[in-house]
Amino acid sequence: MAKSQYEYVRKFEQDDALLPLTWVVIRVDGRGFSGFVARHEYAKPVDTRGAAVMDAAAKAVMEDMGDLVLAYGHSDEFSFVLPPSSNVYKRRASKLVSTVVSLFTGAFIAAWPAAFGPDVPLMEMPVFDGRTVVLPTRAVLRDYLSWRQVDCHINNLFNTGFWALVGDGDDPAVANKLLCDANSAQKNEILFSRFGINYNNEPELNRKGSIWIRDLEVTDYVDARGHAGFRVSRKLVNVNTDLIGDAFWTSAYPHLLADVKLKDHHKRIKAERAAAGHGADAPGASQ
Amino acid sequence: MAKSQYEYVRKFEQDDALLPLTWVVIRVDGRGFSGFVARHEYAKPVDTRGAAVMDAAAKAVMEDMGDLVLAYGHSDEFSFVLPPSSNVYKRRASKLVSTVVSLFTGAFIAAWPAAFGPDVPLMEMPVFDGRTVVLPTRAVLRDYLSWRQVDCHINNLFNTGFWALVGDGDDPAVANKLLCDANSAQKNEILFSRFGINYNNEPELNRKGSIWIRDLEVTDYVDARGHAGFRVSRKLVNVNTDLIGDAFWTSAYPHLLADVKLKDHHKRIKAERAAAGHGADAPGASQ
Amino acid sequence: MAKSQYEYVRKFEQDDALLPLTWVVIRVDGRGFSGFVARHEYAKPVDTRGAAVMDAAAKAVMEDMGDLVLAYGHSDEFSFVLPPSSNVYKRRASKLVSTVVSLFTGAFIAAWPAAFGPDVPLMEMPVFDGRTVVLPTRAVLRDYLSWRQVDCHINNLFNTGFWALVGDGDDPAVANKLLCDANSAQKNEILFSRFGINYNNEPELNRKGSIWIRDLEVTDYVDARGHAGFRVSRKLVNVNTDLIGDAFWTSAYPHLLADVKLKDHHKRIKAERAAAGHGADAPGASQ
Amino acid sequence: MAKSQYEYVRKFEQDDALLPLTWVVIRVDGRGFSGFVARHEYAKPVDTRGAAVMDAAAKAVMEDMGDLVLAYGHSDEFSFVLPPSSNVYKRRASKLVSTVVSLFTGAFIAAWPAAFGPDVPLMEMPVFDGRTVVLPTRAVLRDYLSWRQVDCHINNLFNTGFWALVGDGDDPAVANKLLCDANSAQKNEILFSRFGINYNNEPELNRKGSIWIRDLEVTDYVDARGHAGFRVSRKLVNVNTDLIGDAFWTSAYPHLLADVKLKDHHKRIKAERAAAGHGADAPGASQ
Repeated sequence: MAKSQYEYVRKFEQDDALLPLTWVVIRVDGRGFSGFVARHEYAKPVDTRGAAVMDAAAKAVMEDMGDLVLAYGHSDEFSFVLPPSSNVYKRRASKLVSTVVSLFTGAFIAAWPAAFGPDVPLMEMPVFDGRTVVLPTRAVLRDYLSWRQVDCHINNLFNTGFWALVGDGDDPAVANKLLCDANSAQKNEILFSRFGINYNNEPELNRKGSIWIRDLEVTDYVDARGHAGFRVSRKLVNVNTDLIGDAFWTSAYPHLLADVKLKDHHKRIKAERAAAGHGADAPGASQ
Repeated sequence: MAKSQYEYVRKFEQDDALLPLTWVVIRVDGRGFSGFVARHEYAKPVDTRGAAVMDAAAKAVMEDMGDLVLAYGHSDEFSFVLPPSSNVYKRRASKLVSTVVSLFTGAFIAAWPAAFGPDVPLMEMPVFDGRTVVLPTRAVLRDYLSWRQVDCHINNLFNTGFWALVGDGDDPAVANKLLCDANSAQKNEILFSRFGINYNNEPELNRKGSIWIRDLEVTDYVDARGHAGFRVSRKLVNVNTDLIGDAFWTSAYPHLLADVKLKDHHKRIKAERAAAGHGADAPGASQ
Repeated sequence: MAKSQYEYVRKFEQDDALLPLTWVVIRVDGRGFSGFVARHEYAKPVDTRGAAVMDAAAKAVMEDMGDLVLAYGHSDEFSFVLPPSSNVYKRRASKLVSTVVSLFTGAFIAAWPAAFGPDVPLMEMPVFDGRTVVLPTRAVLRDYLSWRQVDCHINNLFNTGFWALVGDGDDPAVANKLLCDANSAQKNEILFSRFGINYNNEPELNRKGSIWIRDLEVTDYVDARGHAGFRVSRKLVNVNTDLIGDAFWTSAYPHLLADVKLKDHHKRIKAERAAAGHGADAPGASQ
Repeated sequence: MAKSQYEYVRKFEQDDALLPLTWVVIRVDGRGFSGFVARHEYAKPVDTRGAAVMDAAAKAVMEDMGDLVLAYGHSDEFSFVLPPSSNVYKRRASKLVSTVVSLFTGAFIAAWPAAFGPDVPLMEMPVFDGRTVVLPTRAVLRDYLSWRQVDCHINNLFNTGFWALVGDGDDPAVANKLLCDANSAQKNEILFSRFGINYNNEPELNRKGSIWIRDLEVTDYVDARGHAGFRVSRKLVNVNTDLIGDAFWTSAYPHLLADVKLKDHHKRIKAERAAAGHGADAPGASQ
């Protein structure tokens, strides 16, 4: 197509490619969500319908961008994790953040009716903003995710107390002051002594937030010629659990942050099985 | 609220504030819109329902972000213009681009039913990406907008010819080749000789795209004490016209890019009226 | 030449090109210069030998980088101004700042002996750091330069008072306190009442700092065939004068920030002479 | 001190802090050094006096900036390595690059007379530019350094051949063509068959370039009360050796990239000695 004398303005678009071979987090946050939540009369402290909509939106982003390895969210935020090997959208910050926010917004709207039912229509469009954070190592990435989960814990403990107090007739300002002056142990004590609530028995969703991971799935098969083999694939899994401790990363999902291709996982598993004297690995081929 | 040992990860979020006192364009582009358009069977070359949805989405962004002075769009894109004086979201690139894209996506979805009617439901969520472009002067801003309108012209002339030829039974590949080899005059000639179409009579929406501006509105009044005055306000106006030539900027909307406050417009108008011997300006007060 | 498997690390060098069509200031500052100055026993408040070395260093930078239009400095700093049209070093920030600092450092060292003479050898290498500042308009550039000249004024007024007091036997801490508590008028009054110093009669170099400009020079000539003409060229000029007011920009050097090529200055002058009925411009050619 | 209305221009200086917890390389390159080298009649292919000046300049930078752990250079370039833990100059790119370039330029000039003697004065100031490169992991840092050493090898093999041929009377253009068409083995063969030069016997300085490291030094002592102890310190060491293979990093200098403090090295060594049954570590204290 013909070009014009105005083409030169292209050069004003500055390069915003993020540093190669680093972990990238794209975090989505609700804009003015306290108002949105109030106008849709969310249940307190956590509305399971609202959480389901956030989860569905995060799942849609994970499905759309296959490079993402994990998403963690709570309240009105979700953080999506791109591994060092990814070069999606040439790692351009504006492209990454805008696409994720657009996908998230659309999927949130799409998921609303199923979660809230016909009696609670979406009365206004939700608005999200986003940012990118570049993290050079796995250790810093884990600290980032721990930071968000600590935030979830702090907020939920406070909110659980606050809404219990207010539901019990306390003045909101008084309840707020009481909790702001209390440390964690004291907040737990208030919950237990006044309401018989053992905070540790509160739902994991409330206390831990929501984690989407692309877990490895190994499928054994026997092919038409009778040869045994196995396939390695990835599937989206949602869990509400602790990701601050080592167990999540070393025991439950030890390969989550390996940032290797499926064929390399296949090789590894084959070697592990061979070492363990496992017989079913002979002619297998990963997809 | 209590802090954690993980707070340090905050410092990995890098400053992306755009240069102060510059014009900023936030451009939204549809992702994979040729497929979206095909699956929703848009009319060719321009679907007025689809254009209405884009216009409604752009209007919603303009209404939400009061600092924006102009939006220009065609096809699946819209460019929003923020003036040098604006400090909205501290000019942070990721915040600006993600908020605009989220607003746009939500408003597009919201506007769909009214434009397409009950028989054409939205079958998938639209996805948009965005970018920011920093432009140091009014002259470069005008060149940027001219660049996009030239792009509209080139694409629409091509598409008008292409769909006329294909509608007339031409093979799409042959039609494509014919038009790619033709210059503008030849494309016009093909349209006229084969279809009797005078391209200049095609709808302005198709040929010029869509412009939202926040135009000045001057309202004269007489207050309770009988004193005459006037108010200056802004209102959103949509036009489909040429913005490459000077007329749009110097005759039609001479104050559009002035980047001054309403009270300063009031002062200016008052002085102009005084100079012209106009009597109605004595005790007026702008809002 | 052959490439290696390590070539990929090139992509870690991020693009740091500064926004096109903007004014760029590269400012050089002495690192730890109070110690350097003390060890070389600079005269107070301003050592003319030290200022001459700084001037020579700035001149060398101006001579090396022909695109620079102005340099302003005082004390241990110099700001170099690159116009919007310049694309030197592709406007890469690190390249610009490092080259200017290297040139400045080398030229400072080279200029030392002539300024300080054989009795005051350079006992240690001076160290400078640098930064780039992007300014979108002429107005902001003028404000930047005014900011630096105000800084020169504030510092020199203080230092003139301080060293007069200390030279008169005052305790440095007492002198410092006295001046920190005084406004400009009071500092002037201290100078006048105690030392008979009228601050406005202090050297312009001290009060205004040093300005290098690339001034236009018009040379009339008559060629071999008897045709009169003129040439326009640029030459480096050093002045110590006020650049905050309009006079410097509109009367003294009205074309300094025009950012146009010599041939366009030639055209302009030719047209001006023609309009003024000047006859000597007929077949002139600029270089 | 008083502020002025112009202070606002400060905000045009944009934040250029490099990503925390990453390796940072600051590379210095000679500007137009082929001319500088020719005018000072450097010996070919490598002038040991010129290399000594570069080494002295690099050493001065290492001495000035204590956070640097390694410098590697050859020809007219030197790369300085800052570890993830460093926060010197707040990791601001322009400050880092300009300071290093200024130090390097000054030290180069200072070192000239001792290296070249009274008969070869410095006839012009050398000019260097610089850049910063951010590298997220040790592996990428090693690849960066390998990249530069491969470059040294390629250039030196070529130059050794070229100057041998030209010294033998070959036309420079012919020699250039011959070598450009030859692979490494063929270049070696030319050197050996025509000049009896075994390239592997060429000086390590020429083939490997120059490496400055801050090596650990352990000093055992017995204090006044008869207690044995040891101190850990760092000292600058210059070597000309291979850094591409593992030996340099794992055998020769296994702690070079550990990025830990001296006191932590002390702890580690103490524990290692204890494990080895070493008795001398009891009451030692690191400095």
